Amino acid sequence: MDYASYLQLSRILSAQAPESARRGTPAHDEMLFIIIHQSYELWFKQIIHEIGLIDGIFGEDSVDEADLGRAVHAAERIVRIQRHLVAQIDILETMTPMDFLEFRNMLVPASGFQSEQFRIIEARLGLSRARRLSFDGHTFDTRLPEDARTRVKAEEEKRTVLAALDAWLSRTPFVEMGGFTFREAYGAALDAMLKGDIAMIAAHPQLSAQEKQVQTAALEKSRAILDALIDDARYAAIRAQGGFVMSRRALQAALFIFLYRDEPALQLPFRLLHAFMDLDEQMALWRLRHALMVSRMIGSKVGTGGSSGAQYLRATADEHRVFNDLFALTTFLIPRSAMPKLPDDVRRAMRYRFEA
Amino acid sequence: MDYASYLQLSRILSAQAPESARRGTPAHDEMLFIIIHQSYELWFKQIIHEIGLIDGIFGEDSVDEADLGRAVHAAERIVRIQRHLVAQIDILETMTPMDFLEFRNMLVPASGFQSEQFRIIEARLGLSRARRLSFDGHTFDTRLPEDARTRVKAEEEKRTVLAALDAWLSRTPFVEMGGFTFREAYGAALDAMLKGDIAMIAAHPQLSAQEKQVQTAALEKSRAILDALIDDARYAAIRAQGGFVMSRRALQAALFIFLYRDEPALQLPFRLLHAFMDLDEQMALWRLRHALMVSRMIGSKVGTGGSSGAQYLRATADEHRVFNDLFALTTFLIPRSAMPKLPDDVRRAMRYRFEA
Amino acid sequence: MDYASYLQLSRILSAQAPESARRGTPAHDEMLFIIIHQSYELWFKQIIHEIGLIDGIFGEDSVDEADLGRAVHAAERIVRIQRHLVAQIDILETMTPMDFLEFRNMLVPASGFQSEQFRIIEARLGLSRARRLSFDGHTFDTRLPEDARTRVKAEEEKRTVLAALDAWLSRTPFVEMGGFTFREAYGAALDAMLKGDIAMIAAHPQLSAQEKQVQTAALEKSRAILDALIDDARYAAIRAQGGFVMSRRALQAALFIFLYRDEPALQLPFRLLHAFMDLDEQMALWRLRHALMVSRMIGSKVGTGGSSGAQYLRATADEHRVFNDLFALTTFLIPRSAMPKLPDDVRRAMRYRFEA
Amino acid sequence: MDYASYLQLSRILSAQAPESARRGTPAHDEMLFIIIHQSYELWFKQIIHEIGLIDGIFGEDSVDEADLGRAVHAAERIVRIQRHLVAQIDILETMTPMDFLEFRNMLVPASGFQSEQFRIIEARLGLSRARRLSFDGHTFDTRLPEDARTRVKAEEEKRTVLAALDAWLSRTPFVEMGGFTFREAYGAALDAMLKGDIAMIAAHPQLSAQEKQVQTAALEKSRAILDALIDDARYAAIRAQGGFVMSRRALQAALFIFLYRDEPALQLPFRLLHAFMDLDEQMALWRLRHALMVSRMIGSKVGTGGSSGAQYLRATADEHRVFNDLFALTTFLIPRSAMPKLPDDVRRAMRYRFEA
Repeated sequence: MDYASYLQLSRILSAQAPESARRGTPAHDEMLFIIIHQSYELWFKQIIHEIGLIDGIFGEDSVDEADLGRAVHAAERIVRIQRHLVAQIDILETMTPMDFLEFRNMLVPASGFQSEQFRIIEARLGLSRARRLSFDGHTFDTRLPEDARTRVKAEEEKRTVLAALDAWLSRTPFVEMGGFTFREAYGAALDAMLKGDIAMIAAHPQLSAQEKQVQTAALEKSRAILDALIDDARYAAIRAQGGFVMSRRALQAALFIFLYRDEPALQLPFRLLHAFMDLDEQMALWRLRHALMVSRMIGSKVGTGGSSGAQYLRATADEHRVFNDLFALTTFLIPRSAMPKLPDDVRRAMRYRFEA
Repeated sequence: MDYASYLQLSRILSAQAPESARRGTPAHDEMLFIIIHQSYELWFKQIIHEIGLIDGIFGEDSVDEADLGRAVHAAERIVRIQRHLVAQIDILETMTPMDFLEFRNMLVPASGFQSEQFRIIEARLGLSRARRLSFDGHTFDTRLPEDARTRVKAEEEKRTVLAALDAWLSRTPFVEMGGFTFREAYGAALDAMLKGDIAMIAAHPQLSAQEKQVQTAALEKSRAILDALIDDARYAAIRAQGGFVMSRRALQAALFIFLYRDEPALQLPFRLLHAFMDLDEQMALWRLRHALMVSRMIGSKVGTGGSSGAQYLRATADEHRVFNDLFALTTFLIPRSAMPKLPDDVRRAMRYRFEA
Repeated sequence: MDYASYLQLSRILSAQAPESARRGTPAHDEMLFIIIHQSYELWFKQIIHEIGLIDGIFGEDSVDEADLGRAVHAAERIVRIQRHLVAQIDILETMTPMDFLEFRNMLVPASGFQSEQFRIIEARLGLSRARRLSFDGHTFDTRLPEDARTRVKAEEEKRTVLAALDAWLSRTPFVEMGGFTFREAYGAALDAMLKGDIAMIAAHPQLSAQEKQVQTAALEKSRAILDALIDDARYAAIRAQGGFVMSRRALQAALFIFLYRDEPALQLPFRLLHAFMDLDEQMALWRLRHALMVSRMIGSKVGTGGSSGAQYLRATADEHRVFNDLFALTTFLIPRSAMPKLPDDVRRAMRYRFEA
Repeated sequence: MDYASYLQLSRILSAQAPESARRGTPAHDEMLFIIIHQSYELWFKQIIHEIGLIDGIFGEDSVDEADLGRAVHAAERIVRIQRHLVAQIDILETMTPMDFLEFRNMLVPASGFQSEQFRIIEARLGLSRARRLSFDGHTFDTRLPEDARTRVKAEEEKRTVLAALDAWLSRTPFVEMGGFTFREAYGAALDAMLKGDIAMIAAHPQLSAQEKQVQTAALEKSRAILDALIDDARYAAIRAQGGFVMSRRALQAALFIFLYRDEPALQLPFRLLHAFMDLDEQMALWRLRHALMVSRMIGSKVGTGGSSGAQYLRATADEHRVFNDLFALTTFLIPRSAMPKLPDDVRRAMRYRFEA
């Protein structure tokens, strides 16, 4: 057992073959270009490894609560890695457009859009083929080699993290327990709060009449959506229009968790939802930083992959969100002061005694 | 001389008065909300201080080359501060929407859009009133109190960093020296390269005929724009349509600096341009991170300032760019191999002897 | 309600009075020096605010398990802030020694060692006066003005976070429940593992005989210390020699939590311990970065406070650790495979049913 | 040309073979452990690549001033990479000691001390074998396999970056030009300043008599060292005792550059020295963060390489400094106000005309 052999460094460190050198016109910065992308791919593999752990825990029809902590830890680790990957762009930006110009045309038609692992991460998390933006009129995997495309397709067949989360949330017992029905208790409390918000807009000194109308309408719409959260048929309708991706029961449970997160039994579920939202945000941030970098590096030029990549990346930052529904729930939060008190039996069910 | 009195800590540390406490319903996280914004404002003051240094050096009709290094250092320090301000959002994100909900309505109609210093930074750098996106149909400063608005207007009257940079670049001697005329030498070299790019597109295996057409047209357009860089009348026309903000002579000099940055006399000018591009990018990044945070914190709700802030912030990240013209130049770069050789007298003029 | 008045910006932004300007020899970088220290003090106030929350939750003789999550969140927020404060040193390092030289002598005898809030943070966490390194033969607060010293002393009287944690851990029920006695079950498992470690050392191809002796002795000593963990009298003896700061019962519970952290009832306690360790490490990192910066800024010169600060800061990074005992426990961890199985009744006591 | 083949991903992504899986007891976190180390090694290769560029530029008997900018850029890129590597430790810290315990014994006797590339980086920069701390009584490369040791030795034979820098600095013309002799002009100015410092200490309200004595003595010693900077024989003596590593002429030039860095001809040299100091500091920071992480991960246990690694790493952070002499110069800086004015001919020699 030896450091270099354990890490297989002979393979890792001999896998950099700058094209510019091969062509007899070595460009110093191509090494950086190769190494940073290899580093990204290594970390993509680690992210897939962590997704595998989460999937293993949530794959079953029931989740052992003693495994939940490890799932949260894995999700939080992914976020830590993502922060690092976003920051790593700082290094690539030490390569100026002039330096990139020395070898960029040699890479045609290779492109970052050909990263199989990145596609797999998106697919495993739950970014469905249907919801992807098409790119230059192609589907997202057109640029992948045949075998890679097959592997990605295979990954797409698997149950996604989003689906596993949905199924698990839908089994939350506390939202309907004994005589307690969360949606009724909550519906009343929410009506009160929405009234407050509408009043706030009406009284707002700096809003034009039209703006007030717009925003009041927005709130009414929220209310309508919430009703849908309670009525299966109407929810299905909205969902059919792409209004929601997750199931009604799952979103209702997520809302319950956000509101009563301090209850011991909800702490880990809350952290899990929080981690998935961080993950989604870091993914968007990665796309945005990436877009800024690309537009800086190649201006309005065509990308090596033939892509007008920057605009596309900017668009995906908005559209390729997996856990968007969780962000949407923010609209339905109500202040602790306004929250319905939970019946004792429900609260008891969510506690244990840490202290003697 | 004592630490606390030197830093006037009695004032600094007594300036946090949570509204929620004043109203008898203390919300723990309001302290974080206040302190992080105060921290931002402190750093905004530092940025304005650095802009002042740059302005002082560039304000004159001529720049003492012995001051240039300090101007570059100030610009690079601003970028370092900006990176820090963007990262600081991580701390604010430890406040959940539920926690913000405890006091957000109490802040109406206060809003981050009322930051006078931020407006001053934008104005001093060179973001003109005309180019600002209107917000809820108001001009950008509607929300500022009268006196603040007056102060911002006064700052807007001053010569901007962008204008000072433009004037200084326009005085660059090397672009026309002895018999040498940069635009002629460059024009020829560029024609050759554009031919290459067009060929690359034509031969591209993964581009549709239509995409090829689009991108070839884009390059032709670039060429047209470049011609404009040479012809005052046509440049003026494009500029009138908002195509460029900087002057023809300034952009020509900037291009020269990007291409020949290795020449000793161009090293500092190159670093200065580079720092201004970093600054512009960090500003955009700040707006994007800020937008992500806002949409996460308040969902589709109306902001305390009555703003649908997230979308606006996203839009300004694209539109409120001060040094955009410098990014646009990327399109006109050519590989070192293709660059016209400079006449000896021009090169000599850009050198000194560091070694005996 | 207006942004500037809410944040009291008129006070915050008028509190920078560079001494160099007052003396008629303005030094540009003194503004940075003032603002970065004011920013640090703002964040120190926030950290004290979070410590207050933790103290409020743990101050009682019993901790409501529904509050534990908020305590963990506060501790994790402190760590997030600390990371930010450490990174902020990057900005100060844009000030070169030459630039500092322009005004440093004007600050004598002011010194960062006079930060009252930093002393309070150390004191409230649990860094006792007795364990502090003396500095230039003074106690740590000699340099503080009289009134500040009095306030710090008052804070020192309060129950520390470390003490509150100790008391709470000592009440952990699971370590002795029904027939189960953790220390017995664990003692047996540990003996097995230590045998393994000793064998590993003996068989180690790259250890000199002497080194093997040293390290084997170290392990034997660990074993002895562990015995002490079980025997009150012997534990008291070691503790008297400064071997441990926390109580035997508390450390035993902490060890139990580290080992069985996956149990739902132990998840939050584990996160709390983890956060306190992060906090301790970030504090050490702050001192180390600070020391590097100081030695770079003033070389071997005397600090403005008359301190040879760098070496002292380096030393405190090792000695001023509050939660050292938790790090020490690492030695006593054993692989999951070797861990004693918990009786069903104990495991049941640490669970709830999240799913129906 | 295809993304995956260009980056040789089939090799990169198949080079992770967790030992725990091979032994039939898979430990989830071993993948992280492998990937993060492989990522570190990739970046080490990039750092060596940048050192190669610097060496190529400085290897000659004269440095083309048109290459200097690229050397500075390479050094600054190394620093950017180092910052990233230090931050990357955050990811490894998501692995708890309990998780590491699952596989750490399987790695014996592999150890990070066996990183060939890290040794090469140290050697190429200029950390001589003689100045290395011995470790467990071995020389630093005992643990390397025979072939690796040979390669490291070969790298040690090469001219180091430190040596190349020294030779280049020694050729600085401006320190003695026409009638001007820097050391004379400077000596006088320095005497004045040291008097001021001694007075400051004498008048210091918070220094004990003994402390004053100590610090005054320190300053007298500085003065003595400075004299040595002027007298070859005495300098040689101090250097023989390890007081300095660089040559007298080189240090004198470095001091000149620090003092007159605003002169155009000194801007790049100043940035280069600054970058090497940053590089040295980041190296120390890496060792310190690494030490904190190790002590957290394995407590007082023996490292997998048989090392008591933490203490050693802490020690190397102080002792394995390559550019220490540059930090030492801080003591000799004097305020701009006190600096001797340069003769016109010397100033002219350091300028060019950027503007017409």
